[in-house]
Amino acid sequence: MIVAFQGERGAYSEQAAYVFFGTRLDPRPKKTFSEVFSAVSRREVDRAVVPIENSLEGSVNQTYDLLFSTKVKVSGELELKITHCLIARKGIQLKDIKEVYSHPQALGQCSKYLQAKQWNIIPAYDTAGSVKILKEKNLGNAAAIAGRRAAEIYGMSILAEGIEDQASNYTRFLILSTRDSLPTGNDKTSIIFSVKHEPGALYEALRVFALRRINLTRIESRPTREKPWEYNFYLDFEGHRKDGRIADTIDVLRSKVTFVKILGSYPKSKKRV
Amino acid sequence: MIVAFQGERGAYSEQAAYVFFGTRLDPRPKKTFSEVFSAVSRREVDRAVVPIENSLEGSVNQTYDLLFSTKVKVSGELELKITHCLIARKGIQLKDIKEVYSHPQALGQCSKYLQAKQWNIIPAYDTAGSVKILKEKNLGNAAAIAGRRAAEIYGMSILAEGIEDQASNYTRFLILSTRDSLPTGNDKTSIIFSVKHEPGALYEALRVFALRRINLTRIESRPTREKPWEYNFYLDFEGHRKDGRIADTIDVLRSKVTFVKILGSYPKSKKRV
Repeated sequence: MIVAFQGERGAYSEQAAYVFFGTRLDPRPKKTFSEVFSAVSRREVDRAVVPIENSLEGSVNQTYDLLFSTKVKVSGELELKITHCLIARKGIQLKDIKEVYSHPQALGQCSKYLQAKQWNIIPAYDTAGSVKILKEKNLGNAAAIAGRRAAEIYGMSILAEGIEDQASNYTRFLILSTRDSLPTGNDKTSIIFSVKHEPGALYEALRVFALRRINLTRIESRPTREKPWEYNFYLDFEGHRKDGRIADTIDVLRSKVTFVKILGSYPKSKKRV
Repeated sequence: MIVAFQGERGAYSEQAAYVFFGTRLDPRPKKTFSEVFSAVSRREVDRAVVPIENSLEGSVNQTYDLLFSTKVKVSGELELKITHCLIARKGIQLKDIKEVYSHPQALGQCSKYLQAKQWNIIPAYDTAGSVKILKEKNLGNAAAIAGRRAAEIYGMSILAEGIEDQASNYTRFLILSTRDSLPTGNDKTSIIFSVKHEPGALYEALRVFALRRINLTRIESRPTREKPWEYNFYLDFEGHRKDGRIADTIDVLRSKVTFVKILGSYPKSKKRV
């Protein structure tokens, strides 16, 4: 199973991929989310794993935007507990640290820990990539924030573990493919829709689901990028698009809104890992 | 009028402040959004100007989260057209550039322009701050992406203007104060609410507005940061909280949801500038 993810080896997305697919995995790190989606579309890989949402920081906008603009399907999801580590070269101690590198979202999740220090904060594109920077540039007074796996891959030491502000820090990942998944009886469906720019239009769309007692698990909006202050809405709800009741609901929705795109149906995430 | 904003002198937020308040402005740059909100709360400044939403990149999460966690009120809004410039030290030409600094959102907004170049992309905390870095570090093979105002303040030259992917690039800013604004007859109100974690709960809340034909101009959600996958909803709608009809609507909403916070009522933004 060849699986693409964004970031360097040791990224949280790679960890999520190992949890989802097990050790039969052939990981393919990609520099950008755009390259990850494109690798799936071109069938260069079998699957991809991308973060969609973090329980503290919220949505990953690039993933939402690429779900709209590409033809990739969602075939699964996974929730992963995020435990951030402070990582440095072997022999470096906490008192030596003068600057810390990481992705802005990871820096944000450790803001209380970092506020207590007097370190220079340096944003980077990637958590595991920050660890790689420490190694490659041989930085002695620097640390990175990333997962335990990144420390292991790059042969670094962990100075502190669990430095996030809140222990309840989960990221939800999507599994991407060229097709979605067959019904299992415990599924979710993800769609995108847009409504006329008029009062009550969003309400009318949600009414279609409320009248049929379909449980919405997530609603998100993103700018259309065509006209300022017009939005695409992203909806996750329980049920599979091949269930008769869900198929009917989507048909009724189509008659009430200006645009619908079905991203796919897939088994609901098992309990958090 | 003493006005705080996040970023270095020359930031787009400072530009927005000058458009809103005119030249009687005493600008107070702050390093973080948290410091901006705190300066308003402690009455160290009269007002603050913060970005809430960009028409291409979407919401500014930190602003949303601080509106929830502080007691600051929204007293106005402003839409500003964003025109990104490629800025370098005087004498530097386009062919000399090897790396480009800017805030990730500005880099994202210029992604097509940047993809055509072979430059090293370096994320920074701030657009105008990137220009300041070029000047202070005396960087010769580097450029920054920021507004025209930043080039002028730091005495730099503009190598290209309007390099954003889409000309229709607007940022909506909020004016923050310790009080909101009096009714003008053409107002908006911003609130935050949360609902029970059960099917149809969001729909029931929106129904309160739909039944009264109140026009929602924006809905956004952010994680509560207390429990994974539970959200606070942010709603902007037309009308002033002191209008009888709006006051009644908010009362009915309170009876249907678990939490309501009124951020304030304020005059709707005039046409875009």
